[in-house]
Amino acid sequence: MSMNLEEKTWPQVEEYLKSKKSIIVPVGSTEQHGPTGLIGIDYLSAWEIARAVGAKTNTLVAPPLCFGMAVHHMAFPGTITLSPATYVQVITEIIQSLTQHGFEKITFINGHGGNIAPLTTAFCQAKQGRETCNLQLINWWHLPEVTAHEKTIYGDQNGFHATCGEISVTMFTHPEAYSKIPKMTFEPTKDRPHWPMAPFEFRQTFPDGRMGSNPALSSEEHGKVLFKLAVDSICQKLE
Amino acid sequence: MSMNLEEKTWPQVEEYLKSKKSIIVPVGSTEQHGPTGLIGIDYLSAWEIARAVGAKTNTLVAPPLCFGMAVHHMAFPGTITLSPATYVQVITEIIQSLTQHGFEKITFINGHGGNIAPLTTAFCQAKQGRETCNLQLINWWHLPEVTAHEKTIYGDQNGFHATCGEISVTMFTHPEAYSKIPKMTFEPTKDRPHWPMAPFEFRQTFPDGRMGSNPALSSEEHGKVLFKLAVDSICQKLE
Amino acid sequence: MSMNLEEKTWPQVEEYLKSKKSIIVPVGSTEQHGPTGLIGIDYLSAWEIARAVGAKTNTLVAPPLCFGMAVHHMAFPGTITLSPATYVQVITEIIQSLTQHGFEKITFINGHGGNIAPLTTAFCQAKQGRETCNLQLINWWHLPEVTAHEKTIYGDQNGFHATCGEISVTMFTHPEAYSKIPKMTFEPTKDRPHWPMAPFEFRQTFPDGRMGSNPALSSEEHGKVLFKLAVDSICQKLE
Amino acid sequence: MSMNLEEKTWPQVEEYLKSKKSIIVPVGSTEQHGPTGLIGIDYLSAWEIARAVGAKTNTLVAPPLCFGMAVHHMAFPGTITLSPATYVQVITEIIQSLTQHGFEKITFINGHGGNIAPLTTAFCQAKQGRETCNLQLINWWHLPEVTAHEKTIYGDQNGFHATCGEISVTMFTHPEAYSKIPKMTFEPTKDRPHWPMAPFEFRQTFPDGRMGSNPALSSEEHGKVLFKLAVDSICQKLE
Amino acid sequence: MSMNLEEKTWPQVEEYLKSKKSIIVPVGSTEQHGPTGLIGIDYLSAWEIARAVGAKTNTLVAPPLCFGMAVHHMAFPGTITLSPATYVQVITEIIQSLTQHGFEKITFINGHGGNIAPLTTAFCQAKQGRETCNLQLINWWHLPEVTAHEKTIYGDQNGFHATCGEISVTMFTHPEAYSKIPKMTFEPTKDRPHWPMAPFEFRQTFPDGRMGSNPALSSEEHGKVLFKLAVDSICQKLE
Amino acid sequence: MSMNLEEKTWPQVEEYLKSKKSIIVPVGSTEQHGPTGLIGIDYLSAWEIARAVGAKTNTLVAPPLCFGMAVHHMAFPGTITLSPATYVQVITEIIQSLTQHGFEKITFINGHGGNIAPLTTAFCQAKQGRETCNLQLINWWHLPEVTAHEKTIYGDQNGFHATCGEISVTMFTHPEAYSKIPKMTFEPTKDRPHWPMAPFEFRQTFPDGRMGSNPALSSEEHGKVLFKLAVDSICQKLE
Repeated sequence: MSMNLEEKTWPQVEEYLKSKKSIIVPVGSTEQHGPTGLIGIDYLSAWEIARAVGAKTNTLVAPPLCFGMAVHHMAFPGTITLSPATYVQVITEIIQSLTQHGFEKITFINGHGGNIAPLTTAFCQAKQGRETCNLQLINWWHLPEVTAHEKTIYGDQNGFHATCGEISVTMFTHPEAYSKIPKMTFEPTKDRPHWPMAPFEFRQTFPDGRMGSNPALSSEEHGKVLFKLAVDSICQKLE
Repeated sequence: MSMNLEEKTWPQVEEYLKSKKSIIVPVGSTEQHGPTGLIGIDYLSAWEIARAVGAKTNTLVAPPLCFGMAVHHMAFPGTITLSPATYVQVITEIIQSLTQHGFEKITFINGHGGNIAPLTTAFCQAKQGRETCNLQLINWWHLPEVTAHEKTIYGDQNGFHATCGEISVTMFTHPEAYSKIPKMTFEPTKDRPHWPMAPFEFRQTFPDGRMGSNPALSSEEHGKVLFKLAVDSICQKLE
Repeated sequence: MSMNLEEKTWPQVEEYLKSKKSIIVPVGSTEQHGPTGLIGIDYLSAWEIARAVGAKTNTLVAPPLCFGMAVHHMAFPGTITLSPATYVQVITEIIQSLTQHGFEKITFINGHGGNIAPLTTAFCQAKQGRETCNLQLINWWHLPEVTAHEKTIYGDQNGFHATCGEISVTMFTHPEAYSKIPKMTFEPTKDRPHWPMAPFEFRQTFPDGRMGSNPALSSEEHGKVLFKLAVDSICQKLE
Repeated sequence: MSMNLEEKTWPQVEEYLKSKKSIIVPVGSTEQHGPTGLIGIDYLSAWEIARAVGAKTNTLVAPPLCFGMAVHHMAFPGTITLSPATYVQVITEIIQSLTQHGFEKITFINGHGGNIAPLTTAFCQAKQGRETCNLQLINWWHLPEVTAHEKTIYGDQNGFHATCGEISVTMFTHPEAYSKIPKMTFEPTKDRPHWPMAPFEFRQTFPDGRMGSNPALSSEEHGKVLFKLAVDSICQKLE
Repeated sequence: MSMNLEEKTWPQVEEYLKSKKSIIVPVGSTEQHGPTGLIGIDYLSAWEIARAVGAKTNTLVAPPLCFGMAVHHMAFPGTITLSPATYVQVITEIIQSLTQHGFEKITFINGHGGNIAPLTTAFCQAKQGRETCNLQLINWWHLPEVTAHEKTIYGDQNGFHATCGEISVTMFTHPEAYSKIPKMTFEPTKDRPHWPMAPFEFRQTFPDGRMGSNPALSSEEHGKVLFKLAVDSICQKLE
Repeated sequence: MSMNLEEKTWPQVEEYLKSKKSIIVPVGSTEQHGPTGLIGIDYLSAWEIARAVGAKTNTLVAPPLCFGMAVHHMAFPGTITLSPATYVQVITEIIQSLTQHGFEKITFINGHGGNIAPLTTAFCQAKQGRETCNLQLINWWHLPEVTAHEKTIYGDQNGFHATCGEISVTMFTHPEAYSKIPKMTFEPTKDRPHWPMAPFEFRQTFPDGRMGSNPALSSEEHGKVLFKLAVDSICQKLE
């Protein structure tokens, strides 16, 4: 049964809170993912995984925050970014809204590496007062079950951005979108000289947007397995 | 064909920008909508309408900003709000991201009355410099075609929040969610003493969250008509 | 008798608050008003109307906030603007100061269209907590009595900025200032292509600062009537 | 001839800027001034002095910023304060507006001690870039001519807030307002234990709002002399 | 030879920049470190290590930022914290100052875990524009050489806060301070229930301020070795 | 005995607070001080003086804030500045941290003129609530004992920046650093045209960074005397 907050009424949430204080918030980004990856990969993957986890564990799932901290991708059209400071503030206020209603465990399922530092910063910002809330950050692509399997199937070609893994996961969840993207072959990319990079540095170094990945290896079948590994791993963590 | 930004690649967006500079951004809220309305009504309705408009007019549609300025609904569990000042900043940065890529016409399709003032404020904030961008705000429930039809079918029972119209539209777009919500009958509500109201004032005055509406009148069939009226009206505006 | 806060002592205000919790705050702008309109029209008109209303209704009137959100007029010398975000914050703090003293009804009499969105945003900002204060925004030039009379005397030449009506009102309140401004005749202006406009766009489109108005029609006599209509209308609203 | 910016048109300002780059901005506060002093003393005195200086030196005078940094007076009804941080931002944006039009010398005539630190802070904030503007702060009550004369007529009873001098100046400029305030006699006040004081500390220490002054000594005649001393002194500084 | 920026003149820095664009910034915190650890451990250790690295590599070392993001330690007297948002802003402005002078490689040597997320957030904030600067974060206690040696000498008693290692390092650099602190023995601490923790949660869970460490194992001799390991490791990274 | 907060443990601070509520915070800047003055003069002098005062009066001394409001020195390499607004916020949060622990008297010993306005602004910011804390600002170079002695030994050649006095004080506290700086002779500098100055204006007017000083007159012996005068004077104030 759907546990999506947006499909509930407020009395249903009031009822839920009588027995359970936990909620999942999917966060991602709207940013370039190389020549063959969807711009929405980061929030789409986090959202789909969050919904599957919510359904299996009977945990409410908030709507996604579709925009993230993607400053370094701004030299590629289609990327939308919040500044780091604003992102910290938005996450802080989402937490404050939820704790005000009595939620005591908020699990952020995150699909974008650039969000990690501002998310963690926001958690500290939100914990300055007397809130007793447990804040948890799960970066699905960092889960050991996921990285181990990616290692097996992609070796050292998974990369750091527009990875084989995240493209596979969204091939599984959004096959129709990928059906309109032509197949390509890829050369290896340069190494990154330092991090973080300014937008123009990023595009100079990684002209097609990939960082070390070979997305030609991605497939819907891989995605199906990785998706299940992520969902199962998170379900275990939540219990 | 889908025109959803999240399902495109960045080279597809780069190509699009060669011939068209227009994009739609759906914005809404995650907030209580009375005992029988979905918490996600405002962003779900805006998003669905935006996608239909995008498909019909071949205009890109950004992912939705699911969280809005819903301070006054915070006494009802499930509501998530950004502060007005933060909302202004988020919208400003979304606009700046898009103008930086060369978009010159940004149409916000909005599903929530509380967003109007901060959206307009953000537009002014974004136009302080030399951007030549055309910023347009369309509140779908304010479209004359929509309000005229609502008047015909609901008379003076459409209300101001959790309206018959917006509930009908989401009955049409999300029938499965409504199938789990029990039917109810409703008494008239009090008048609002002043506006805006603090969260506790709102709940004291409107204990079930409705403002003047009789959602028992809503139906999927109404929603289908209203949805089409909104989409057609916006398509005309965009051309 | 003068009800101007700046001409009172604090014990007089303390006494006043024992029987009445209402105060008026005039807000406007310092910005160009075409070749023959005063730069101070927006705050001067709001202030004069506020003082007359205060005197007739025995309601305290705060000093005016002379600076508003006038970003779009910044290509004309003499305009002074606050950024939208700062304006929101200033209004929020004025409200907080007044509610802290026990004022429960704060009526902003506004003379500038550009202030409406940030004023409304500030009202929401101020109502995030437990204040029970009634916040009311009255845009004097939007009052039905005023617009109806303007329609009668100016037809479709009243315009949207540097309007015949607001110039007339300040001709009535500040005749000596107008005596130093040479009379002119005016051509129709272009339509505005979109809104809001960046400063340079505004001046390109409206090179003399007017938007659709024919200020040659303005007169002190008109101003006297419009002023009285506005004052009487607001007095009724306050009671 | 009036040099008030609010009574000019933008072409008049454009003309003025061809030969002169100087403008005066009066700033003050809306705050308690003891049992017999006007709440508006600080901005009224600064504004009247500024207008007189402007008229004598043919220098434009902006409208006043009527609200200042008056946090410490907030335990007395009628006081309206901006937070220090907001005040800094407002002054910064007023400066930026003026330098954008080509003003190169901005003289703030100030009537409130609490504004000095945030004004100076704002000056530094505004000078971070490449503006060549000369920013000048004149606290009229600190002018040596003024303090010397106050010493002569009030000895050690002038005080630090609600001073004999500033009350006298506004008795001269606003006699009608003082005609409605009953005469009183005053006891000496306590010394201030430290500075700055929180609102409640201030009222505990100075229960009627005065700090060391004996306003019974104030008179319209004194005010006339002090006003002239201030105006003449500032005129000399400007030339 | 000392490479401390504070002991240089500006012409010496100008000269330095002709041949080298690198600078080290030590950052730490002022916060409780259990019953026997110095409040200054985090900035003292980072500063001393930074100075030694600077001297060995002829790299300039900025003065330390002694205050960090220590919200969670605020229930212990002596802790001074910046809010996460302010910390992000301070680091951003330090970077902007340095890049403005032409520094192209800025290495932050950090002594406090709580700083990592806001430091990383600030790096992204600083890289929004066209700066080509290489920003590097080195958490000295995370260096593999350091953690390996700590594992050898402390096993699983090094802990997560007020660790044996950081206390040892400052025993080596500040023996005189430790000579005034009585020796103690320690019980194991509880596990942390979640992270981050609010100040009151932290003190309830860890009443003496330690997190899993047994500082009785610390010694000046250990500190000497760990200090050298950290310095050598960082020197290698810089070259 | 050392009273440096960074060399204490939290139980020592807890014990201290049982009998004394006072703490000293040294603040300065990292900025150019002419061709022969150390970049760290402002914080080094304030810190050394603070430590001596702390030791003599048994008052805790916090670590220094080494970075100040030095915008106007940014055209000289090695200067690091916080923006005025950020500096206000940092000081506010340091005060809030200390009052939260029960400190009731916080004395800032300051070594930099540019900090005075934002420090005072921050004090007001911190006193908006119910804190009873006594906040005191001591600018050591403004102490009458110090300025009188400087007048005697330097006449009118002490200057306003990179003064003979502050260079002498740091020659006394940091002789080794000065031993590496070549001796120079100096021409008089121009007068400053206005204040504050933008960075480029400052360097144009004062190309070597001095403002009216002749640092060739400075000596370690002078510094020893001035240091003692400052310390003794502050000790008296604190008692």
